[in-house]
Amino acid sequence: MITLYHCPGARSFRVLWMLEELKLDYRLETMAFPPRVHAPDYLRLNPLGTVPLMTEGEETLFDSAAMLIYLAPRGDGSLALKPGEHGYGDWLSWIIYGEADLTMPLATMLRYGTFLPEHKRQPAVAADQAGLFIERAARAAERLKSAPYLCADRFTAADISVGYALLLSRFTGTHKQWPEPFNDYWARLKERPAFLAAQAAQAAQMPAG
Amino acid sequence: MITLYHCPGARSFRVLWMLEELKLDYRLETMAFPPRVHAPDYLRLNPLGTVPLMTEGEETLFDSAAMLIYLAPRGDGSLALKPGEHGYGDWLSWIIYGEADLTMPLATMLRYGTFLPEHKRQPAVAADQAGLFIERAARAAERLKSAPYLCADRFTAADISVGYALLLSRFTGTHKQWPEPFNDYWARLKERPAFLAAQAAQAAQMPAG
Repeated sequence: MITLYHCPGARSFRVLWMLEELKLDYRLETMAFPPRVHAPDYLRLNPLGTVPLMTEGEETLFDSAAMLIYLAPRGDGSLALKPGEHGYGDWLSWIIYGEADLTMPLATMLRYGTFLPEHKRQPAVAADQAGLFIERAARAAERLKSAPYLCADRFTAADISVGYALLLSRFTGTHKQWPEPFNDYWARLKERPAFLAAQAAQAAQMPAG
Repeated sequence: MITLYHCPGARSFRVLWMLEELKLDYRLETMAFPPRVHAPDYLRLNPLGTVPLMTEGEETLFDSAAMLIYLAPRGDGSLALKPGEHGYGDWLSWIIYGEADLTMPLATMLRYGTFLPEHKRQPAVAADQAGLFIERAARAAERLKSAPYLCADRFTAADISVGYALLLSRFTGTHKQWPEPFNDYWARLKERPAFLAAQAAQAAQMPAG
């Protein structure tokens, strides 16, 4: 049985979406953000207090992109490209791109624009990071000009990784500068039954904090 | 045949080290940093101008952590944990941790402390990111208190991912604040024949730029 530790809107949403795509059984443990403040007991499980954390039997994972790669071969296998299959290395690259190239600048933008105490905020840095996000988005936009999804002409875990970044982009307002192909792509992603099911599962446990 | 596009000291060093650990044949293409300035032709291969880029036949990868996961099962297989093997999810998490939790704050520190034109630098942000690196280093330090390597009591690709971050940490000066277990760990890593061979391969092609 899989347990996912989650905060609404955080990177753990990637994994929640993935679990719904795969129709796996899971237990969702939702905490208010940041857990170090609202769920101090969580620090015994994950000393840095970050989400997600995912456990399955004796296995513990502490990074959302790792969880996507770990889970992807399940179900009918269509969310993964497999070692040896053409495009496997490309697929791995897109999964990490969704985190390192797209989510990271948005997270840094939020840190210096919103989350830090007001006297520590740096609006120029928030703007610079928004610019980095848009600059790096060009790689995905180029691919999506000629394909409905990032890899192998089908929806895979790479689209979940990048799709989460687009969700976060909407939260930050940077979607107003999206390259054109992102608009249709986002429309396809947000109508997926598993995306909607993940949003419903998240809403059902929304913490008060 | 594998081709690796590399800049001295950049994330591509991870892959160079990995290729030397695996004793694979490869072609190294070294460019001065940043390639968009010093090797404009490279933008035809990789429009964002980032390194590394790695090609093998028809396969192209554009993220260093993805390359580690892709290459790890080769050689005698000891650098990888395999799907289904206990610790596989943990191993994937550490590979991405080396990038997202350790390398990213150092790269952001360098952006705002060193690489941007002087009028755009933000020393307070550089200091904040150095603090984030040290905070997140605690996770690896805790593991290394009781084990020589991060996963499965043996050297794996996870140590290459984190080891590169330690190399970058030395470059930034943040190693002066390392948690204690990092010192012995680093001493073990930097004496590996493949680490030294990667440094020699890099030095042999050092560009003038």
